[in-house]
Order: sequence, then C-alpha cells, then structure tokens
Amino acid sequence: MKAHILRKFIDEVWNRGRIDAIPGYIADTYHIVHDPGDPWEGLTLDKAAFQDRVATSRQPIPDQNFEIQTLHENEDSVCITWCWQGTHLGDIAGFPASGKLLHMSGATVYYFDGDRISGHWQVADRLSIYQQLQANLV
Amino acid sequence: MKAHILRKFIDEVWNRGRIDAIPGYIADTYHIVHDPGDPWEGLTLDKAAFQDRVATSRQPIPDQNFEIQTLHENEDSVCITWCWQGTHLGDIAGFPASGKLLHMSGATVYYFDGDRISGHWQVADRLSIYQQLQANLV
Repeated sequence: MKAHILRKFIDEVWNRGRIDAIPGYIADTYHIVHDPGDPWEGLTLDKAAFQDRVATSRQPIPDQNFEIQTLHENEDSVCITWCWQGTHLGDIAGFPASGKLLHMSGATVYYFDGDRISGHWQVADRLSIYQQLQANLV
Repeated sequence: MKAHILRKFIDEVWNRGRIDAIPGYIADTYHIVHDPGDPWEGLTLDKAAFQDRVATSRQPIPDQNFEIQTLHENEDSVCITWCWQGTHLGDIAGFPASGKLLHMSGATVYYFDGDRISGHWQVADRLSIYQQLQANLV
C-alpha cells in the first residue's frame, strides 16, 4: 500500500510536476530530516511550502525523471534507491543552462503517517552533478 | 536474520577491520552493481579481492565508523542508510593526511544469496567529502 502510494507520488509529483496533486499525498507537515545540499534541509514544510519546493526544484530541469531501482517497505517508511536524469534548461546553483542531459543517483527514506508522506531522509551523489555542470561550462 | 547478519558485518568488517571475518559473511562472488567513485564499481570480487578492497579502503582512515540510521529488509536484500566518520590519517585520492575528522552520509542495498552477502548498490554524498578534503588543505 505505502509502496504503491510512493510510486504514484514520485511519478505524478516529481516526474510530471503535478503540483496540484501534492495535498493528496503529503501530511499537514513534512519534515526534511537529512538532505545535504538541499536548501530546505532541516525544515518542516506545510503543503504550500512543499508545493513551492517542488516547483522551484523542477524549474531548471522540467523533464526530470526519477527511475526507482530498488524499493524496501517497513511498517512506517519506504526506502527507495533511484537514478535521476533531466535536461539542464535553467540556472542551477549559478551554472547557466547548458541544454545537456544530467545524471545522478541517490536514495531516499520516505516516512509515512498513515497513508500520507510526512518527511524524508535523503542522500544523493552530488559530486557527479557538480562534475557534469563544471564540464558543461567548457 | 539478514538484518542481524548485516549489522554484524558492518560492525566487524567495515568498522573494526576484521579482514579475517570476511569469508564468513560474503558469498564466493560479490558483485558491485553501482557505487559511483568506488574503484571497484562494476567488478565481481572473490573473497580475497574483497579482503583487499576492505584493507585498502580502511588504510587511510583506520578508525572509520558507519552508524546505521535506518534499515529496511526484503526477501533477498537489506537497505541501510548510514552516517560515516573517520580520521584522515593517510592519502585519499591525492589529498595528504590532515588529521581531521571527516563526515559523510550514504545508503547501501546489500544483496543476499541465502545467508551470505553477494553484492551491493551504493550511493554516498561524495561532494561533502571532497569539500572537506579541499578545506583541510588550507
């Protein structure tokens, strides 16, 4: 059940950018426990702030796609590993749009409160993205 | 059962460096499916090669410690998220020993063949380590 909800959430919200679907997936508060490099790390977001986070994150990479590699479900959380890709069409941390395809992998534990997602713990291979952004400057 | 084996493996092998305990934990072949930046990524190791990998990896950071944050168990795999730390006492990728404590987080899916570990899929926040190594040069 949680696995099914999470797969739909990743597909609709993060991959297809359906901001309006967010209130149906997340809890009234969403806590970002651990997410090095994410501007929202440590914060607790309400639904509007979460919508803003997704819109802002997707803006420079509108075709971004998370492909789930593995999925493990516990009583109150789901852990996924993923490969991500997207076309660099806007400014990312000061790197102007390159039009190049970017790749990254990572893992996320999503915490659930009943059937709503209430937060996450995430890590990603940010060095890989940094190296691609540097290379695309040339 | 797999969770118990994995916790012992991380503690004995990676945290305490008991190379002699490795044959009791891993399968005859160990496949590194995904591990960006790891020199052994993509390779299939026998037990001796795995022992060499652990000894080589631990050499510059002999007090390294993985602290498991979350653990999710499936039928044939276990996924952990972790925070890692260790003192930089030897050369790492050309960065000479700084004597400083290094920190990193990551996630690993360990695949099992019966009660033996047969490979992994891993991602780590390598950018964080890179920034710490750069800062410690000053």
